[in-house]
Amino acid sequence: MGIVGGTGYTGVELLRLLLAHPEVTLRVVTSRSDEGTPLARMFPSLRGHTDLLFTAPDMDRLIACDVVFFATPNGTAMQQVPELLAAKVRVIDLAADFRLRSPQVWSNWYGLPHACPQLLAKAVYGLPELYRDLIRGASLVANPGCYPTAVTLALLPLLARGLVDPDTLIADVKSGVSGAGRKAALGTAMGEVGEGFKAYAIDGHRHLPEIVQTLTEVAQRSVGLTFVPHLVPMIRGIEATVYARLLEDEIDLQQCYEQYYRQEPFVDVLAAGEIPETRHVRGTNRLQLAVYRPQAGRVAVISAVLDNLVKGAAGQAIQNLNLMYGFPETLGLNGIALLP
Amino acid sequence: MGIVGGTGYTGVELLRLLLAHPEVTLRVVTSRSDEGTPLARMFPSLRGHTDLLFTAPDMDRLIACDVVFFATPNGTAMQQVPELLAAKVRVIDLAADFRLRSPQVWSNWYGLPHACPQLLAKAVYGLPELYRDLIRGASLVANPGCYPTAVTLALLPLLARGLVDPDTLIADVKSGVSGAGRKAALGTAMGEVGEGFKAYAIDGHRHLPEIVQTLTEVAQRSVGLTFVPHLVPMIRGIEATVYARLLEDEIDLQQCYEQYYRQEPFVDVLAAGEIPETRHVRGTNRLQLAVYRPQAGRVAVISAVLDNLVKGAAGQAIQNLNLMYGFPETLGLNGIALLP
Amino acid sequence: MGIVGGTGYTGVELLRLLLAHPEVTLRVVTSRSDEGTPLARMFPSLRGHTDLLFTAPDMDRLIACDVVFFATPNGTAMQQVPELLAAKVRVIDLAADFRLRSPQVWSNWYGLPHACPQLLAKAVYGLPELYRDLIRGASLVANPGCYPTAVTLALLPLLARGLVDPDTLIADVKSGVSGAGRKAALGTAMGEVGEGFKAYAIDGHRHLPEIVQTLTEVAQRSVGLTFVPHLVPMIRGIEATVYARLLEDEIDLQQCYEQYYRQEPFVDVLAAGEIPETRHVRGTNRLQLAVYRPQAGRVAVISAVLDNLVKGAAGQAIQNLNLMYGFPETLGLNGIALLP
Amino acid sequence: MGIVGGTGYTGVELLRLLLAHPEVTLRVVTSRSDEGTPLARMFPSLRGHTDLLFTAPDMDRLIACDVVFFATPNGTAMQQVPELLAAKVRVIDLAADFRLRSPQVWSNWYGLPHACPQLLAKAVYGLPELYRDLIRGASLVANPGCYPTAVTLALLPLLARGLVDPDTLIADVKSGVSGAGRKAALGTAMGEVGEGFKAYAIDGHRHLPEIVQTLTEVAQRSVGLTFVPHLVPMIRGIEATVYARLLEDEIDLQQCYEQYYRQEPFVDVLAAGEIPETRHVRGTNRLQLAVYRPQAGRVAVISAVLDNLVKGAAGQAIQNLNLMYGFPETLGLNGIALLP
Repeated sequence: MGIVGGTGYTGVELLRLLLAHPEVTLRVVTSRSDEGTPLARMFPSLRGHTDLLFTAPDMDRLIACDVVFFATPNGTAMQQVPELLAAKVRVIDLAADFRLRSPQVWSNWYGLPHACPQLLAKAVYGLPELYRDLIRGASLVANPGCYPTAVTLALLPLLARGLVDPDTLIADVKSGVSGAGRKAALGTAMGEVGEGFKAYAIDGHRHLPEIVQTLTEVAQRSVGLTFVPHLVPMIRGIEATVYARLLEDEIDLQQCYEQYYRQEPFVDVLAAGEIPETRHVRGTNRLQLAVYRPQAGRVAVISAVLDNLVKGAAGQAIQNLNLMYGFPETLGLNGIALLP
Repeated sequence: MGIVGGTGYTGVELLRLLLAHPEVTLRVVTSRSDEGTPLARMFPSLRGHTDLLFTAPDMDRLIACDVVFFATPNGTAMQQVPELLAAKVRVIDLAADFRLRSPQVWSNWYGLPHACPQLLAKAVYGLPELYRDLIRGASLVANPGCYPTAVTLALLPLLARGLVDPDTLIADVKSGVSGAGRKAALGTAMGEVGEGFKAYAIDGHRHLPEIVQTLTEVAQRSVGLTFVPHLVPMIRGIEATVYARLLEDEIDLQQCYEQYYRQEPFVDVLAAGEIPETRHVRGTNRLQLAVYRPQAGRVAVISAVLDNLVKGAAGQAIQNLNLMYGFPETLGLNGIALLP
Repeated sequence: MGIVGGTGYTGVELLRLLLAHPEVTLRVVTSRSDEGTPLARMFPSLRGHTDLLFTAPDMDRLIACDVVFFATPNGTAMQQVPELLAAKVRVIDLAADFRLRSPQVWSNWYGLPHACPQLLAKAVYGLPELYRDLIRGASLVANPGCYPTAVTLALLPLLARGLVDPDTLIADVKSGVSGAGRKAALGTAMGEVGEGFKAYAIDGHRHLPEIVQTLTEVAQRSVGLTFVPHLVPMIRGIEATVYARLLEDEIDLQQCYEQYYRQEPFVDVLAAGEIPETRHVRGTNRLQLAVYRPQAGRVAVISAVLDNLVKGAAGQAIQNLNLMYGFPETLGLNGIALLP
Repeated sequence: MGIVGGTGYTGVELLRLLLAHPEVTLRVVTSRSDEGTPLARMFPSLRGHTDLLFTAPDMDRLIACDVVFFATPNGTAMQQVPELLAAKVRVIDLAADFRLRSPQVWSNWYGLPHACPQLLAKAVYGLPELYRDLIRGASLVANPGCYPTAVTLALLPLLARGLVDPDTLIADVKSGVSGAGRKAALGTAMGEVGEGFKAYAIDGHRHLPEIVQTLTEVAQRSVGLTFVPHLVPMIRGIEATVYARLLEDEIDLQQCYEQYYRQEPFVDVLAAGEIPETRHVRGTNRLQLAVYRPQAGRVAVISAVLDNLVKGAAGQAIQNLNLMYGFPETLGLNGIALLP
């Protein structure tokens, strides 16, 4: 098994989970800029857990793997995936390269032409709660974004069951700073984002088309979604508060959600009246949510939380891996949240 | 001038601002539990700035003041205000006792009968941007809540000008922990609220009826508002992201807001494309906001920020004081935000 | 296996670790005030991991356990331990009741008489790096405090090998707020301790006599230690910077520490020039340290980090459990730190 | 008055304080990379407080000023100061270029040759508590570093009065992240420094020679100082815990410090038993300290706090300005700390 790009937050989280996964042997972790550096020197948390060194992103080594994870910036995986697939290597891309079906939409949001548009139709969107069977047989899995995982799972039952007006969807989402990646940038300096709160990308965030694509498929009609992300002065965690207008008064939202998700190992519907907190899922692959109908009105409010680096990235990638290889879906993903 | 209840966060912020106010001499600060303690012992930030001691909440001393601020828990001011008003002392209540016009609604939300319902009609809601003239002549000012200040000012131009469907209002608001006051409580312990994010009071927060009351008056019809507060792991600051459905396509929101607020000293409409951040108004009486219309659609999105202890409490109280006494409205409120 | 007092931060960390421990079945978790509440309702992070309810601290149930952990406030365990030991139940006390050998010293620092002074000599101080063999056979283990674990392990090689003047020891230690426990207290409110830093208990902290007791035993003579704790605006983690005057110039500190700790599974001496960070050991039972000799002078500087709730509390307790029951010492304690 | 380099944290703090200073008119603020940008666009906290634009660092404009502040990276001021001094412009350098008297020591620590070594003897070290009279007449003031201000003021009375062994000085100092400046750097990203604590530069920090230089002058003999800085997950504030061995038992430390600093407007000796907290001086030019003698022993412990951007940088620079121009020393520096 190999990882391309193991020096980011998604990368080190993949390492944490894969090094403890009983069915996985990690053989290659690449980083062009850190070739030759022991993983455990860059991440002292890994001391004693692995002797691997970062290697150059050499195609021969990657082709020798059964499966390769891409934990790279957007636009990197699409350069290498065709050759890997041709060599029968299965791929899980944690970036956005294969999440959108339309090359045109992809180009509009990511600002460059897609390098292998013919693969977009072949890629499976790796949201197990929706595409579990397709994932099992996939050779190329597009691991969902962190926000899309939260928002989509929050809205899924309402749209699948046709309970809300799909033109009235609002997702007000909040993320810790690790969502912006591990890099030198003024915008994520603690002096800039600590002790403060703000919205960003109000006029359009790249995760919007991804969410709309999935919700449209679920609703089987066009949807109108307003999506506003915010930056929280914490490291891990996403909370999505989602609003939608119910089509009728007589809907038991609590029962609807419990029913819809009753078999899902990683979606946890809280009891009526409880409140999800990001810290309760920190470090785990779990999404916890609660459903409300304030003042018994026509607006459904769902609050959903997940760890952006786990269910929003590395954990979901391993959930997909487990499905692809026929392992128990929860294998290596049973840890309890670190609280407090 | 006197302050009843000077030991909370609102109280110490009032002290910070009033001690620097050129027209104010502070004579009495009461605290039943801390009688005899120098203010500067409880708050070492005040060393060298005042020699006052906390005194018992003794009516004689208060009656000797021109104006008394209440920075007490809800339900306290209403016990003392009638006597103060009778003695011609003007009152600014920073708690919720006089914010709602209906004693019945007040009782429903605050869980006890109102002690002086006859004064509710007499009290002026201290939002200068809406009730400036009434405040000038008021003897009893109900200083608005922190969330209501943010949400109301974010929605005011849209409703005053009839640009949105008043049944579709959504306010997703986020506050730092100082909004919960200065007290021993598990719920605000750093181990509980640090490094985490959550919604709370989804099914109904006490600030809801206050906002609805004002917006109804502005819209001159009933409004439908969904209001969900969240807790941010920071100390000061509120951000409100407000959503409303526009009634027509041809509306220049930017111009509308700039026009509406062009004379307001403490409402600052950012240029198109800018993003408000709570840290940019920290410690100041300013609300900064930006207006958006994502994907050029029918949903207006306003992001507004303020410091919950200043424009959301103590600063607005002093703005009201300035109006009541004919001082320049910005007197003592011109400080620049502490950044970073 | 039972836990008395499972509602604090040490308690929930014990739960996290024990529920994943392959040789442990947890049968009883007591809490007088929360009797009947499911653990997973108080701590939603445990949903799906346990069905246990908190029960009243009933001696019969505890006596049916092989071993009982006390994760209670100081002064509680000593009331129940004699009866448990008489019933052949082994006890690991995570509080301070059995850490000091002298009942008189204990009373001076904890402000009440000791309830079973005769047991103090029988208790084994649960620092495996020093008392491993005694722990194996112990029926009563006094789990060390968080600061003492950090400071003692930082100084151990220097004192054991007689390399420093034991009268010149200075320990400047810094802790996250979870060290103060899970409780309603103004002093740990985020509004009081967030975005700030301070020393506390400069004139004497309860962990001082505990450290001095151990270091005196190691040095085989009296030691002079100045110990100043500080509060860091974060949740988990302790860093101790320890200073001591070397007796000679020709000492290779790096080699000394590597040698001394080369067999220890949970003490990790970093390479020369590296810097320990609390986040690198978050959630793990590991202490990482680095040794320095600034400007090649006579002052040794050791920086040591640990997670106060793991190696400083619950993890070390399980390390002791493993020793007492002949399990591999690292069983259930191999997790990788959650980074970032 | 001009500022060279107004885009860092020190720069924006200078702007905050100078824009409110009654005797100052700010005419030029330079930034090569942001020429033409309004200050208030880069720092929205300044909206409405200034219409200035950043200009290129043009010598003609600077020469037209009475005084120029340098808030630039180390090594910049020394390129321009000779020409400014020649033009009779007085200079206050907030960087390190003129803090050390020896060009050789400066080169060793800053890694490049000094551009104008002949000016080092002419520069006055801008610590008013020690060099007030010299500052009054200075044309070139080297504003002290943040750590040196805290450590030096903490140790001054002990060394000036010969109460401690100057070979035993230990300064364990902790700083918020704004001390590292405003820049894109992985090392100050919130994902790297949030929720964590660490020492750094244990083997030697650039502020060490600066402190040693001053203390040597005060002690009138060589001093042995071990200085270890740490990074705190907060934005503003420094706490220094300083340890020194007393030469005799009969010393009243409290009285000594109160006496020594009784006339100082910005050094505040707390009452016996009180604890300094960084938040109590946030945004102010005040240093608060407390003195202890734990267990009535021979080790003096002083805990001192200041705001690294104010008394540790911009505020002290203005205090120096006030002295240089004969303004009241506290002019423009009387603000009360923002608490909480």
